[in-house]
Amino acid sequence: MSATTISAISTAPGVGGIAVIRVSGTDALKHCNAIFKAKKKTALLLQQEANTVSFGSIINSANEIIDEVLVSVFRAPHSFTGEDVIEISCHGSVFVQQQILQVLLEQGCVLAQPGEFTQRAFLNGKMDLSQAEAVADLIASTSAASHRMALNQMRGGFSNELMKLRAQLLDFVSLVELELDFNEEDVEFADRTQLKSLASAIERLILRLSDSFRLGNALKNGIPVALVGETNVGKSTLLNVLLNEDKAIVSDIHGTTRDVIEDTININGISFRFIDTAGIRDTKDKIENLGIERTYQKIEQAAIVLWILDCTKLTEHIEWLTDRISKRAEGKKVILVFNKIDKIAEDEREVLNQLFEQFDGERIYISARERINTDGLQKALVAAAQLPDVNPGDVVVSNIRHYEALRKAHTAISRVIEGIDSGISGDFLSQDIRECMHFLGEITGQISNDEILGNIFGKFCIGK
Amino acid sequence: MSATTISAISTAPGVGGIAVIRVSGTDALKHCNAIFKAKKKTALLLQQEANTVSFGSIINSANEIIDEVLVSVFRAPHSFTGEDVIEISCHGSVFVQQQILQVLLEQGCVLAQPGEFTQRAFLNGKMDLSQAEAVADLIASTSAASHRMALNQMRGGFSNELMKLRAQLLDFVSLVELELDFNEEDVEFADRTQLKSLASAIERLILRLSDSFRLGNALKNGIPVALVGETNVGKSTLLNVLLNEDKAIVSDIHGTTRDVIEDTININGISFRFIDTAGIRDTKDKIENLGIERTYQKIEQAAIVLWILDCTKLTEHIEWLTDRISKRAEGKKVILVFNKIDKIAEDEREVLNQLFEQFDGERIYISARERINTDGLQKALVAAAQLPDVNPGDVVVSNIRHYEALRKAHTAISRVIEGIDSGISGDFLSQDIRECMHFLGEITGQISNDEILGNIFGKFCIGK
Repeated sequence: MSATTISAISTAPGVGGIAVIRVSGTDALKHCNAIFKAKKKTALLLQQEANTVSFGSIINSANEIIDEVLVSVFRAPHSFTGEDVIEISCHGSVFVQQQILQVLLEQGCVLAQPGEFTQRAFLNGKMDLSQAEAVADLIASTSAASHRMALNQMRGGFSNELMKLRAQLLDFVSLVELELDFNEEDVEFADRTQLKSLASAIERLILRLSDSFRLGNALKNGIPVALVGETNVGKSTLLNVLLNEDKAIVSDIHGTTRDVIEDTININGISFRFIDTAGIRDTKDKIENLGIERTYQKIEQAAIVLWILDCTKLTEHIEWLTDRISKRAEGKKVILVFNKIDKIAEDEREVLNQLFEQFDGERIYISARERINTDGLQKALVAAAQLPDVNPGDVVVSNIRHYEALRKAHTAISRVIEGIDSGISGDFLSQDIRECMHFLGEITGQISNDEILGNIFGKFCIGK
Repeated sequence: MSATTISAISTAPGVGGIAVIRVSGTDALKHCNAIFKAKKKTALLLQQEANTVSFGSIINSANEIIDEVLVSVFRAPHSFTGEDVIEISCHGSVFVQQQILQVLLEQGCVLAQPGEFTQRAFLNGKMDLSQAEAVADLIASTSAASHRMALNQMRGGFSNELMKLRAQLLDFVSLVELELDFNEEDVEFADRTQLKSLASAIERLILRLSDSFRLGNALKNGIPVALVGETNVGKSTLLNVLLNEDKAIVSDIHGTTRDVIEDTININGISFRFIDTAGIRDTKDKIENLGIERTYQKIEQAAIVLWILDCTKLTEHIEWLTDRISKRAEGKKVILVFNKIDKIAEDEREVLNQLFEQFDGERIYISARERINTDGLQKALVAAAQLPDVNPGDVVVSNIRHYEALRKAHTAISRVIEGIDSGISGDFLSQDIRECMHFLGEITGQISNDEILGNIFGKFCIGK
């Protein structure tokens, strides 16, 4: 348990109806008791039962009232951090929040570092490292899918399974290492058949987890979608229509800031991250000059390409463009979006289709401005994403740190299996097993160092 | 008690470590019980004791977990609103907040209107109207003084005294009206001497309260300070220096947004609200053209005028300017600020002083850019504000609605006193007393209507 008692404002910055200031540590009760006057004159915070709430006032050193508050008491180890925790729920004025924090600091509390509450929860064994990381993911989650992945991971996810298998590896490596003490005698304490079957089980789990990363990453960071097309075909109108429809969904209840959703759109709980590309001019000469190569590069980063065309202005170089875009978009989903469909007659559609005879991807006919069939385009995007649903309890790796550790663990466990097959000596085997254990332990935090922890918790917000 | 059960996100909008969703109403327990699964499987929220906190999960209609949360239970009438209240403390993701609110709405909760929790507290007799208004003031408070005024008012302030005197008036008016039933007989149930002494006491209180409004208003909205001077004398540099020093004070702990403090500066707990004026050009001809009149009008709105001069460039029309500014600034504190003092020699100061021989206000020598003596300027501002300290418990009226009601009540009570002196008939007397009671009652909310309440609570944030 840490020597210091930390404190921070845990609710979102700014003015709200109420705000919560959190205190955690050995002296949390003592420090809060010193600044709290319960409504019931005789009641002392020190004697307040765990998991109860008291009404009273926060007073400063001059015995002046700062605010009337609700104070919740949690006692170690039954709290978020595993330490004594006090939560002060005050009026949501920034001034009041600061004043209360100030008197706590005067009492001897230390301002919490980003993520320090969660870090303490990890250090006190309330959660493993991947669960702690999931807390940050959960707070940052903006879609149903990213939310569910984070929640699954926070509630244990794959780390229990990893820890169990790692513990079994530890048993084996101890036996293998015991053999080394008897190396003159050629004994074999560790049953190689059992060891191989364990190693294979671990390999299968690792592969299953690392395979899920493509999905996890797409769900967490959004599926990259490139919008390509000539200038004035309505790209930005379309993007705005999609963004606005999405904004209406995510912010009808509560103000969300624009920089959270940026150019990411939520459709059916899946995030799509739009990659802007420069509009292509419609004279052949200038196309080259205007860095169409950069657009092509962006196509390569995307998983889905929305190729937007203006029905009313199909230029002569369409064929040439089709050829070049198709080449770059190989292996990607390309959706041909015919925009301004309201401007042409029904029979002209046939002409369009003939023009793109060679193109075998999906075609969608819309009008961004008139909002015709934009929902059809959304459905096509969801279909093109080809993502399985994440169900409650599903194991999906979405953290690149975990993915990298899994890949390294895979390399090590593969060597273990090869080593058993080729009958390598115990000391090499032990080294490979230890390496695998190391990387599995990095995920759960059984292996960690200050640098790893600093990297992880430094990205948290203060107060969590 | 209201028929609906309301819910809202009560913490500041946006992403935080944690967020709090509040539910209040007859069905608060029932609705929350339906979506809450306590960690202790057998525990039901319905049976949870008042003022306790439970750990568990919020689940949606598909029985999927939305978040792990802490739930505090408060039971009527011992809650903020006087109704059953549940506070759900969840992870501070906007997505999670919305999801939880969503399932509450699905259960039958209604989205709370701005200030509806406080309005219910008022309607259920947990606080009077002036206390409810103080809740909003407290949340909006950005300085020690405005905070203290709001807190004093929230904790009862002058309303207890007003209510007591109003109750005594009621006794008298009943007696006076009883006399009217016997108007043939010329009886006098209401002792006119006692009534006059009560009316005088009420008049004194009303005067004391309305006199405090100048202070209250200045503390709440900031003391208006006009910065005047020619262009390029360093006005905006000075303003930035003052704003930055202040920002450092108010935001070293927590990010405060720029639009909260805008051009208001906090010095020693007093807010100064800076009124920008157009720089005055230094050619006589153009001065008139550039709307110097507008600047003069702004001087008239100010309580303090900072007249900024560039020591190195005292133009020929200074004298003429002095004359005109002094005229407009009559009755206001004018501080002459000699900027860029680092650019002139010591003996040149004497020349400056002689130039402004006629000026009998304060002079301050600073360099805004080099931050020389800007703290001296701050001290001069505080001295010029001439505001008494607001001590805990001090009665200060800061609400213009209260001020206006007090003025109207004063007119009525003056008529009562005059009436007693001139021995007017009981029915006129009764009418004046009733009018005074009406306006006093408007302050405490004993007299209120939907329009008044709508005006007051409509300005609250949602969730409070």
